[in-house]
Amino acid sequence: MTEEARGATRRLPATTDCSPAARDARLARLGEDGHLLEAISGVAPDMAPEALAGSIEGFIGFARIPLGVAGPVRIRGRHADGDFIVPLATTEGTLVASFQHAFNVINRCGGAVAACSRQLVGRAPCFTFTDIATAMKIVEWLPTQLPLMQAAAATTSRYCRLQSAKTSLVGNTVYMMLEYSTGDAAGQNMVTLATQAVCQQLLPLMPHAPESWLVESVLSGDKRASAQAFLGARGRNASAEIVLSSRVIGRYWRSDAAGMARSWNQATVGAAQTGAVGLQGNVANALAALFIACGQDVACVSEATTSITRCELTAQSDLYVSVTMPNLIVGTVGGGTFLPTAKESLGMLGCTGPGTAAKFAEICAVVALAGELAVVGAMASGAFAAAHASGGRKGRGTGDA
Amino acid sequence: MTEEARGATRRLPATTDCSPAARDARLARLGEDGHLLEAISGVAPDMAPEALAGSIEGFIGFARIPLGVAGPVRIRGRHADGDFIVPLATTEGTLVASFQHAFNVINRCGGAVAACSRQLVGRAPCFTFTDIATAMKIVEWLPTQLPLMQAAAATTSRYCRLQSAKTSLVGNTVYMMLEYSTGDAAGQNMVTLATQAVCQQLLPLMPHAPESWLVESVLSGDKRASAQAFLGARGRNASAEIVLSSRVIGRYWRSDAAGMARSWNQATVGAAQTGAVGLQGNVANALAALFIACGQDVACVSEATTSITRCELTAQSDLYVSVTMPNLIVGTVGGGTFLPTAKESLGMLGCTGPGTAAKFAEICAVVALAGELAVVGAMASGAFAAAHASGGRKGRGTGDA
Amino acid sequence: MTEEARGATRRLPATTDCSPAARDARLARLGEDGHLLEAISGVAPDMAPEALAGSIEGFIGFARIPLGVAGPVRIRGRHADGDFIVPLATTEGTLVASFQHAFNVINRCGGAVAACSRQLVGRAPCFTFTDIATAMKIVEWLPTQLPLMQAAAATTSRYCRLQSAKTSLVGNTVYMMLEYSTGDAAGQNMVTLATQAVCQQLLPLMPHAPESWLVESVLSGDKRASAQAFLGARGRNASAEIVLSSRVIGRYWRSDAAGMARSWNQATVGAAQTGAVGLQGNVANALAALFIACGQDVACVSEATTSITRCELTAQSDLYVSVTMPNLIVGTVGGGTFLPTAKESLGMLGCTGPGTAAKFAEICAVVALAGELAVVGAMASGAFAAAHASGGRKGRGTGDA
Amino acid sequence: MTEEARGATRRLPATTDCSPAARDARLARLGEDGHLLEAISGVAPDMAPEALAGSIEGFIGFARIPLGVAGPVRIRGRHADGDFIVPLATTEGTLVASFQHAFNVINRCGGAVAACSRQLVGRAPCFTFTDIATAMKIVEWLPTQLPLMQAAAATTSRYCRLQSAKTSLVGNTVYMMLEYSTGDAAGQNMVTLATQAVCQQLLPLMPHAPESWLVESVLSGDKRASAQAFLGARGRNASAEIVLSSRVIGRYWRSDAAGMARSWNQATVGAAQTGAVGLQGNVANALAALFIACGQDVACVSEATTSITRCELTAQSDLYVSVTMPNLIVGTVGGGTFLPTAKESLGMLGCTGPGTAAKFAEICAVVALAGELAVVGAMASGAFAAAHASGGRKGRGTGDA
Repeated sequence: MTEEARGATRRLPATTDCSPAARDARLARLGEDGHLLEAISGVAPDMAPEALAGSIEGFIGFARIPLGVAGPVRIRGRHADGDFIVPLATTEGTLVASFQHAFNVINRCGGAVAACSRQLVGRAPCFTFTDIATAMKIVEWLPTQLPLMQAAAATTSRYCRLQSAKTSLVGNTVYMMLEYSTGDAAGQNMVTLATQAVCQQLLPLMPHAPESWLVESVLSGDKRASAQAFLGARGRNASAEIVLSSRVIGRYWRSDAAGMARSWNQATVGAAQTGAVGLQGNVANALAALFIACGQDVACVSEATTSITRCELTAQSDLYVSVTMPNLIVGTVGGGTFLPTAKESLGMLGCTGPGTAAKFAEICAVVALAGELAVVGAMASGAFAAAHASGGRKGRGTGDA
Repeated sequence: MTEEARGATRRLPATTDCSPAARDARLARLGEDGHLLEAISGVAPDMAPEALAGSIEGFIGFARIPLGVAGPVRIRGRHADGDFIVPLATTEGTLVASFQHAFNVINRCGGAVAACSRQLVGRAPCFTFTDIATAMKIVEWLPTQLPLMQAAAATTSRYCRLQSAKTSLVGNTVYMMLEYSTGDAAGQNMVTLATQAVCQQLLPLMPHAPESWLVESVLSGDKRASAQAFLGARGRNASAEIVLSSRVIGRYWRSDAAGMARSWNQATVGAAQTGAVGLQGNVANALAALFIACGQDVACVSEATTSITRCELTAQSDLYVSVTMPNLIVGTVGGGTFLPTAKESLGMLGCTGPGTAAKFAEICAVVALAGELAVVGAMASGAFAAAHASGGRKGRGTGDA
Repeated sequence: MTEEARGATRRLPATTDCSPAARDARLARLGEDGHLLEAISGVAPDMAPEALAGSIEGFIGFARIPLGVAGPVRIRGRHADGDFIVPLATTEGTLVASFQHAFNVINRCGGAVAACSRQLVGRAPCFTFTDIATAMKIVEWLPTQLPLMQAAAATTSRYCRLQSAKTSLVGNTVYMMLEYSTGDAAGQNMVTLATQAVCQQLLPLMPHAPESWLVESVLSGDKRASAQAFLGARGRNASAEIVLSSRVIGRYWRSDAAGMARSWNQATVGAAQTGAVGLQGNVANALAALFIACGQDVACVSEATTSITRCELTAQSDLYVSVTMPNLIVGTVGGGTFLPTAKESLGMLGCTGPGTAAKFAEICAVVALAGELAVVGAMASGAFAAAHASGGRKGRGTGDA
Repeated sequence: MTEEARGATRRLPATTDCSPAARDARLARLGEDGHLLEAISGVAPDMAPEALAGSIEGFIGFARIPLGVAGPVRIRGRHADGDFIVPLATTEGTLVASFQHAFNVINRCGGAVAACSRQLVGRAPCFTFTDIATAMKIVEWLPTQLPLMQAAAATTSRYCRLQSAKTSLVGNTVYMMLEYSTGDAAGQNMVTLATQAVCQQLLPLMPHAPESWLVESVLSGDKRASAQAFLGARGRNASAEIVLSSRVIGRYWRSDAAGMARSWNQATVGAAQTGAVGLQGNVANALAALFIACGQDVACVSEATTSITRCELTAQSDLYVSVTMPNLIVGTVGGGTFLPTAKESLGMLGCTGPGTAAKFAEICAVVALAGELAVVGAMASGAFAAAHASGGRKGRGTGDA
């Protein structure tokens, strides 16, 4: 029995129990699993300012965001395999409770399947030339330089490797999409430095000098929702799925498989009228709460929400639900992951050693899946507003199973 | 001299000084202005679990996110008028320093102009009927019910008022966009409850009963980037602007007005290839750091990034830069604003009393403007990668003025 | 029995019969209904060059596009009510035949329901001022001028009436969306002239003069696919729908209701990955063929394709299919509708007298619906490629019922 | 002196001259160049119905669309090099005249540079499996089958060659983007047949059988505007550019380089608010008129309009204007190109022999460039509405140079 799997057998107090005793019971339960959580629980002193050099300037202290746990949730992923207690930092009342509710549904159905299918981060410099004819020559020349570009990129980091380079011509300007692997790091800074090195390598060799150039042309999709997420590489790509029977749906929401699918159809058509990129409910909720807890770059919520949620009847009249996040800028080293509360949160998920970024991406996908189940379930049972009414500022969330 | 304006005369320590003494000097400086910051600085004890009931479930403690300040920045807004020291919670090295640099530029040019021009939040239920002909009848009937709908909405809150209702027909389904004013609250839960009341009011009166309906159809644009932000109402709409001379640009970045405009043109074309909604650089950075510090719903970064940045040569060959954020889901009451560190951050900005939400929205726009100046300045001076290289994990940011 | 309804009783020759005799039989059949079609059939001489003044410059002759008919199709619309034989000008082999096949399905199910729910055309001037503060004053001033603006617009045409004006602020620039009714005309030129008059009216009265302005800022969505189509007014809005039983589906395609819905779900997810605006299959095919035949502005196919196709299982396990086209720039007077072959095509549809534009819009929606049925049917029966293989350049289309 | 270049020395009658004599003079001028144009001018009899088998069903005759010529325009392209008289079929008054005006500007500046940089057409089947884990195995297996897939595709046509295959995973479904070269054909049917063959090849070999699959999943971007156009392959990619001095601009429009750039900036921001894909003015006008004249699939106007127009000040204070069309589904063989009037139109452009599709794509880009110049020129000189007023149904277009 793995450490992760063991956890499933002992239950946490009801999520809605906000007594000190319930908090202590949760901490004790996590402590049994080897997670001391001294920073999160406030026992450990705050970090010294000097230790934050390089991570923050103008430092005066810390924002404190309430952190709750939901789980365990069973995940049957390629990299994440077991039962997980998930840390979520938020001030949106009922959020953690609604994830707990959805985790219960997932567990009852045997757990969520997940897979991280790609780990690449993009950067996209551009070069403007005098005219299209010159730019075309560069478009033809650039592919011949791939080995030199890869060598230049490799000098900047032990982990950052240039995997491919694609070009597009827009008038006299050549845009180049560079796709890198970045190990377990989110990799945004890594790929910026590598791209700088690639450009410094290319510029003196170019048959024609550009009139101007940018190391990042916004083509990479950095910090914005865009279709680029699906068609190029901008972070890890992870999917999670679950199949629910009408019987299970009826037990947890006032609906059935057909009702859930029908509600999602209505929402899909709503989304289509807005010009939204992607097709999802509220995955931003899951990501923001996880990212704050786990030391991720929270600004990347803007691009990571570019997801696709599916919610369809199967041939057996069950409900198939999946979430695909093509654009997860997440990492388990670098960035804010060294902060004490982030380290403890990642530790809870078993995502601190080498090779754990894909595992973390799969957990993100499953948590997002749970959030989508909660949204569609609320839609279908007409409980959307009711959930907000009974919970929120009044202290009563929707119940645990 | 206002309290806010007084602050501008005394300088904070260099943002890159990460010594305890610098931290203490910053806290002392803010203390002189009446901001004690006991929660942010870690002097005050953490909140008791019971006090968080209704805001979090499964509570075990707090995520601690480093918080720095940049400023003062001079703002000449409709609602925000004076010099502001801005709290930013982040772990992205160089971020606070780059805002400080841009604030210096803004101050040298006399401050940023800002205006909050709209304060509405949308919700969008939908109703499916047997066929188009029936749905059309409802489309014609709904406008006659506006007074009843307004009355129903008004029963749910002292602040929430239904301002308008627009319908669209998609086959046999009627989508209805409801636009509310929500006082100083971000208002997401408010408008959900009000919309529930509106629907409960309408359903028994409808000439034909719907086969199914949703209280929120995703048409509102909640928690996702969409063009809906520009064409409908989804939060406060705020703009900020600044005009920079080539002389000032040359002093702060290795470029001039024409060079900055040219770089932004290249970026615009980069963005256009990605299918991104809106037209901006990295406003998510500004919003995420402000939202975490100020107790806002961080998941709303996903929709609030749907902005338009302009960066154009004027007829006088100066550089005009503006940011328009049509979609700011922010508030100064409700949500996470009651948390001690959030309250202190909002207090620093003078955004805690009644009628301060528009002020806060204008500050958001100016901080986003600063971030965009930093991005375009870095692009134009070729310093983008260099900034990441010298700062980040190595502890050296780009300098203060 | 109406003239239109009578037609349904007599069948046209099989669409795939390409003999002169079949052509003559079709012409005879249409002739019995009072449609002489001398221009389409080539009996009438070409128009004289002088008669084309104002419609074309550099005139040298005519492009001749093959024109076929499919039908009758039964439509139960608000404005279009009866059986219609539809003219389609195309060179894409199997296109007319696949519409015929779908019309047969529609007829077997009692005809398609249709409704034109909006008839407005938008134009969007913009005005740039020195700064945001000035622009805000104009935003507040403009609504007070609506009556003057309406009067100015009304002077330019007997049919063009300004219905509403909405503003948005982007930095120092005010964008204004004007929505007009345009009678039976497509109205693009009409609203341009009216907007010019509105601006000429406003400019001398403005409390502050703009630094520059545009009579059309591209915000109107003219000649491009955009989400604006759903959220604002850019042409007529028409929907059409049909409910198909699995039995009927099985008779016409190798599938059933669940299979059709499942195929469309897969396509929806495909579309969501591309950043496409709207959610549809191939409505451009229907529109291009109808527009060329009926003297519409074919360039508007670019915007009119911004549609939403739904294809869903009903609670009774039937298949609900609808098409909503929010953005139909079509008219039955003006533009190319005076050309002899266009006049005959419109005549076939009973769309030549006053008050027929909404009728024509509903017919467009039903023809698009037929095209979507054909696409989804082909997807579901795996016949997509097969249809292309047996037809196309080799002269064998898919069969009539 | 090439045949094409010779034409530039003799002028056509003013485009606005709508007399029979002017028409005859144009035909005579084109006749001197070897273009007899018997079909366009109406001398030749219509095609017999049997000859249209495979291109149209339900045939009854022809739609006649007025066809005018503008030119010559000088093009300095990779494939199109010389002076071209351009056939345009339209009923939008002033359209041909405004192209003539812009051609005059282009010629005065030495001609437009153009390049066709890519000739690929995409198709995108999808395969749904029982679960993500199985789908992931197929994602890993598919690349190993590329040679077999290429062989299968090659059996279906002498010209169609599979160049690459990319996969994406969305839950349990694998989407596969196949990119083909198609010789001089537009290639839509070709790639459908090839993809059918590829799928038939793959299905029996797959380690796991899909539960369902589609030969085209809408991911290819067929017949719709989408960002996919920029990031993947969906047709030929062509760019055209011109540099205009303020002196030339002042001569042809009431503006200068800075004024034109400023107007386009305003339009860009207008477009950004609409959720439009791409960034362009009215390229649909150019494409629709050319496509109707030249026997192209007019429905593809919907996707080909996904273009990027740039309009920027150069370092020398001139105006740089370019149009990039990444998505041109055009061909010089197959489809409607065999029709007499299409053949004559393509003949006028020297686009009838083998290897002429790239030439035609470059001509399309230059004609679109001319249209964009006309739009921006009209914006900047405030003449937009005026052009519509003086022309249109009243017979007076804007003048020739």
